[in-house]
Amino acid sequence: MSAHSPSTGLAPRIEIIGLGLIGASIARRLTDLGWMVTGSDSDRARAERALALGHIGAVGEDLSAHIVLIATPASAVVGIAQRLLSDPARIHQRVTDVAGVKSVIVAGVANERFVGGHPMAGSEQEGPEGADADLFIGATWVLTPTAQTDPDAFQAIRDLVVTLGADPLSLAPDRHDALVAVVSHLPHLTAANLMAVAADASNEHQALLRLAAGGFRDMTRIAAGDPAIWPDIFRDNADAILAALDALRERLDEARRIVASGDRTALVGLLEYAKQARRNLPARVPSPEAIRECRIPVPDRPGVLAEVTTVLGELGVNIWDLEIAHSSEGERGVLVLAITADVAEQAREALIERGYHPSLGRLSS
Amino acid sequence: MSAHSPSTGLAPRIEIIGLGLIGASIARRLTDLGWMVTGSDSDRARAERALALGHIGAVGEDLSAHIVLIATPASAVVGIAQRLLSDPARIHQRVTDVAGVKSVIVAGVANERFVGGHPMAGSEQEGPEGADADLFIGATWVLTPTAQTDPDAFQAIRDLVVTLGADPLSLAPDRHDALVAVVSHLPHLTAANLMAVAADASNEHQALLRLAAGGFRDMTRIAAGDPAIWPDIFRDNADAILAALDALRERLDEARRIVASGDRTALVGLLEYAKQARRNLPARVPSPEAIRECRIPVPDRPGVLAEVTTVLGELGVNIWDLEIAHSSEGERGVLVLAITADVAEQAREALIERGYHPSLGRLSS
Repeated sequence: MSAHSPSTGLAPRIEIIGLGLIGASIARRLTDLGWMVTGSDSDRARAERALALGHIGAVGEDLSAHIVLIATPASAVVGIAQRLLSDPARIHQRVTDVAGVKSVIVAGVANERFVGGHPMAGSEQEGPEGADADLFIGATWVLTPTAQTDPDAFQAIRDLVVTLGADPLSLAPDRHDALVAVVSHLPHLTAANLMAVAADASNEHQALLRLAAGGFRDMTRIAAGDPAIWPDIFRDNADAILAALDALRERLDEARRIVASGDRTALVGLLEYAKQARRNLPARVPSPEAIRECRIPVPDRPGVLAEVTTVLGELGVNIWDLEIAHSSEGERGVLVLAITADVAEQAREALIERGYHPSLGRLSS
Repeated sequence: MSAHSPSTGLAPRIEIIGLGLIGASIARRLTDLGWMVTGSDSDRARAERALALGHIGAVGEDLSAHIVLIATPASAVVGIAQRLLSDPARIHQRVTDVAGVKSVIVAGVANERFVGGHPMAGSEQEGPEGADADLFIGATWVLTPTAQTDPDAFQAIRDLVVTLGADPLSLAPDRHDALVAVVSHLPHLTAANLMAVAADASNEHQALLRLAAGGFRDMTRIAAGDPAIWPDIFRDNADAILAALDALRERLDEARRIVASGDRTALVGLLEYAKQARRNLPARVPSPEAIRECRIPVPDRPGVLAEVTTVLGELGVNIWDLEIAHSSEGERGVLVLAITADVAEQAREALIERGYHPSLGRLSS
């Protein structure tokens, strides 16, 4: 049963705990799609505002929901997830979260019905007032299944992510944390410090901020966001963030040497390297003819989905569609993935290395 | 006589030397407004492409143009300007440029008919193909008049800037250079190095760039631009850039201490400081009721316009309109400025300090 098309014909139901920008944006989209969305927030007034804005249909709990999504600050996730997952009245529910650091949470929850998640999207808006139903369209949404994860729970959360318009990407929790330190936490810290340097200078020279053109505005935009989520992230991912920060400081030291010595060749080399890398950032959605179907016979047990999707996630392979065809015997099935053609062969080899027997073909639909 | 409405009734004429993104964008807008635009480029093929795209009306020189705009890389500006300004056939022409560093150029040209300029706008596009007639709308365009500058030359270049949709801001050349080191050159260097750190890491972990969300994309966008203009800028403004880089490194060292020690209060303090500063970036265009007219009796001699506009530029005061009413005697005039109400009193006091006698009032129109 897919998360967004229940065989009952009734509206699918979700409970969302935490109605900040992310929780409220998820609520908004699902409500727009006809879901029954129940929400709550430790700030009761915020939940009431989300209700008044029509993002959610009710304030409170929903024991009938088949998914509970926790969108609180990271430090609250483990406690809430443990309470939900140990509640006999909620035994049928799958639980996911959206926190920016995953190792601490996935290890802390350690339950087969929990799938850690992290949407790589955001905005400088705050709270339910900033909610945007389209916030996740085309965004990568990391999922961190483990060997323990129930395949149906994974599939349900993955379907939810697809329903939200995002592209799911499986990664091991610690790998996720190391990578977001580089592409999210370090940039955020850098934006804040760059803005602080300019603010310091503008105290002395009032004209300075008048000169802030599009490039500066782009670079500091994320610094305008709500600081609330960051202390938990910097605590839970400190090691990876420090490593990324050291890599940047090393690069800046080298840049200082280049500027001070007037080394034109090295300067152009650096700028060209960055330019090529920036222009090679992955494009968003491929055309159907650029998609291959990868069919993989798999044993029908927990951990297989996590392993297969994580192997591909490591390679940066986007899985555009995922389906499990269970066999009638119930012990084996076929995992059918849609992946981009230019990485299909590399994906096949990586799966063969892990002992799978994948076959590639054109899309069957 | 204003630059864009010559009393002859004929189309105003401009010659543009250098048809990269900036030169071609200026050409595009002026051509769209009915100007006769003649252009050239050291790369003849590029000039022909600008002609084919309709950005310019002719390839070559235009001795009848009343303005020549130099939009070459910075290192070529002084030589070209000196050649133009010493040409007896061009004695009626005013010359300006768009280079990102001004002290070296303004000192090198040192001519009363030259006004240094720097539009605070750009894009990651390149060449005539990337030209955008609207590139400068709402952007700040720094002008660097000096005590030597002919007032009519200043007015003509200022009118041109307004015609291009930009907001002129006068600054002393060295002050401009120190400020753009902070809000333009340092951000560019930081974007390139941040992209380089991510590119280094992605060589090892292919999934990394899939996780690059809007924040990372915003922060590295300028790194996708053409490196060609930067070596000259980093050479001509090395001292100011090194000072800005050191300020950032000091901030990052402190950030490292904060993250490593888990100092939550200091982290939130930093992020809040940056957030407030980012949200206080000057808005673009004020409403008419937020404008005051500042009338300043002035002696009719070179240097006055430069001094008055630079005093206000230092304060970050945007001059939305500027007019000189010459007296019939010819030795005194009245300078009429439109400035934003909330800084009008501060502007008045700064001018009084310099010995002027300004008066403030509502807009007379």
